[in-house]
Amino acid sequence: MPERISVREVGLRDGLQLEAPIATAAKLRLLDALVAMGAERIEATAFVSPRAVPALRDAADVAAALDRYRGVEFSALVASLGGAGRAIDSGLVNLEYVVSASEGHSQANVGRSVQDSMALVSPIADLVHAVGGTLEVIFAVAWDCPFDGPTPAARVETLVDRAVVSGADVICLGDTIGTVTPRRAADLIVAARCRQPAVPIALHVHNTRGTGLATIFAAMQLGVTMIDSSIGGLGGCPFAPGASGNVATEELVYLARDMGVETGIDVELSIRAAQLAQDIIGRPLPSGVLRAGDRRGFAGSGIVDP
Amino acid sequence: MPERISVREVGLRDGLQLEAPIATAAKLRLLDALVAMGAERIEATAFVSPRAVPALRDAADVAAALDRYRGVEFSALVASLGGAGRAIDSGLVNLEYVVSASEGHSQANVGRSVQDSMALVSPIADLVHAVGGTLEVIFAVAWDCPFDGPTPAARVETLVDRAVVSGADVICLGDTIGTVTPRRAADLIVAARCRQPAVPIALHVHNTRGTGLATIFAAMQLGVTMIDSSIGGLGGCPFAPGASGNVATEELVYLARDMGVETGIDVELSIRAAQLAQDIIGRPLPSGVLRAGDRRGFAGSGIVDP
Repeated sequence: MPERISVREVGLRDGLQLEAPIATAAKLRLLDALVAMGAERIEATAFVSPRAVPALRDAADVAAALDRYRGVEFSALVASLGGAGRAIDSGLVNLEYVVSASEGHSQANVGRSVQDSMALVSPIADLVHAVGGTLEVIFAVAWDCPFDGPTPAARVETLVDRAVVSGADVICLGDTIGTVTPRRAADLIVAARCRQPAVPIALHVHNTRGTGLATIFAAMQLGVTMIDSSIGGLGGCPFAPGASGNVATEELVYLARDMGVETGIDVELSIRAAQLAQDIIGRPLPSGVLRAGDRRGFAGSGIVDP
Repeated sequence: MPERISVREVGLRDGLQLEAPIATAAKLRLLDALVAMGAERIEATAFVSPRAVPALRDAADVAAALDRYRGVEFSALVASLGGAGRAIDSGLVNLEYVVSASEGHSQANVGRSVQDSMALVSPIADLVHAVGGTLEVIFAVAWDCPFDGPTPAARVETLVDRAVVSGADVICLGDTIGTVTPRRAADLIVAARCRQPAVPIALHVHNTRGTGLATIFAAMQLGVTMIDSSIGGLGGCPFAPGASGNVATEELVYLARDMGVETGIDVELSIRAAQLAQDIIGRPLPSGVLRAGDRRGFAGSGIVDP
């Protein structure tokens, strides 16, 4: 087990993108709570088509509010060169560029081929690096595609190689539709790492089939330390049928604390942030730790272990 | 990873005990589906107070229907010597006797001390062994008690020793209120095993805080092969505030299949059984695999790996 993992909170982006648009002020209240709980990396928004993703049409406004937070690394997701340019113009220099690993998802998500998406890695990397930022390439549907079925590992491996050659600083493997399990995750993580031992491999899994935390646990055993999660388990992919709920940040932090794995995030404060997210969204969120509370909250419970 | 795990389906007992009573005929329809999906061990009911647990007051009727199934090992839970006698009279000779590991839960659950509960292990074991059955002692609240807080591991270890000396054939560690995580589970499993290397250690965890499958995954890595789960994620403990949902059988089987771990249970048929359980209960059950379906169900999906 690593001594520490670096959790990226994606609730404001992946968590909200499917939702009806909420006020920017509400997002900033949630952001306050995410910073207060100890989040060190936050994906603040996405610079994508406001028509396709109206919930994130205030990306520039959100970006403009980030200066006040010190010690937090903010990033934004982009799906095009134009989006990358807008993000940088808005002051966000650490970007996630998402590329679908399957043709079916690529067409549904961005209306172009995988090849065409890959061709943008290099110019986006140039943009980002010119302003001192970092580029993470996230491969969506890295394990399974709702349109094309299982994604061949060899295909992902080739894409990983090409992304790194094109300037990606970090590779993230995305379980977009929440199908992955520990062994399949481990196999692809190990394969990607063998291909690119110098590049960090991050993990983005959904909990659609209940296997999210088990998969993260297995990845942590392999030394993966860059892990995405979403407050309250908010989130999904608007173009992937059946997708629902990222792994809940408070569940991940609850598990990590018991493992002696530091996240910088306080369990109780993460539950408060999840409650706020739930209030803002206006319906129950799928997080067990949010619903049931910390185990330390029981009567008679002393803090007896890490 | 073990090549095979032995899943005990507890939906008919732990899954239903909190629910409003349903007709025996509906239980038997669900039982048909559980056998059809490939369940090899099924906890069919409990012989407990019909006043305290009216949902299981038809225990003898359920037991009388079990003869028709060949190749399935049925068991019943009991909480008293009288219950054990009634179970055996009804033809069920493999029993789970539940003992709370904390005083607070013991009083709430059965209205007597842990000491008094432990004193019954030996006479129940004698009853069971006289008819050729096996006795499993399940320690409830083995990690955390909603009344007394964390359960000291040393206390559980001592209880394990005493249960084995008194005739228990199997020990099951019960995460009654769904608080356990991989490290805490592993610590207690290893401790129990060191104390009693000749006695199988089984695991019963709830998914109240989303950590159930991760905990089972970690236990499987330690070679634990006797694992409880409940169809659809039905279940809870009527006397433990905050308890909800066992680990869903179909999520466990979905994960095990991808790990190459045999369960004898078919994923698709487990989803059908969960749908039936949901129909019978009349409200959505908390299983992700039930809600989202098998990953092999996607368009274009071929069966490409175990």
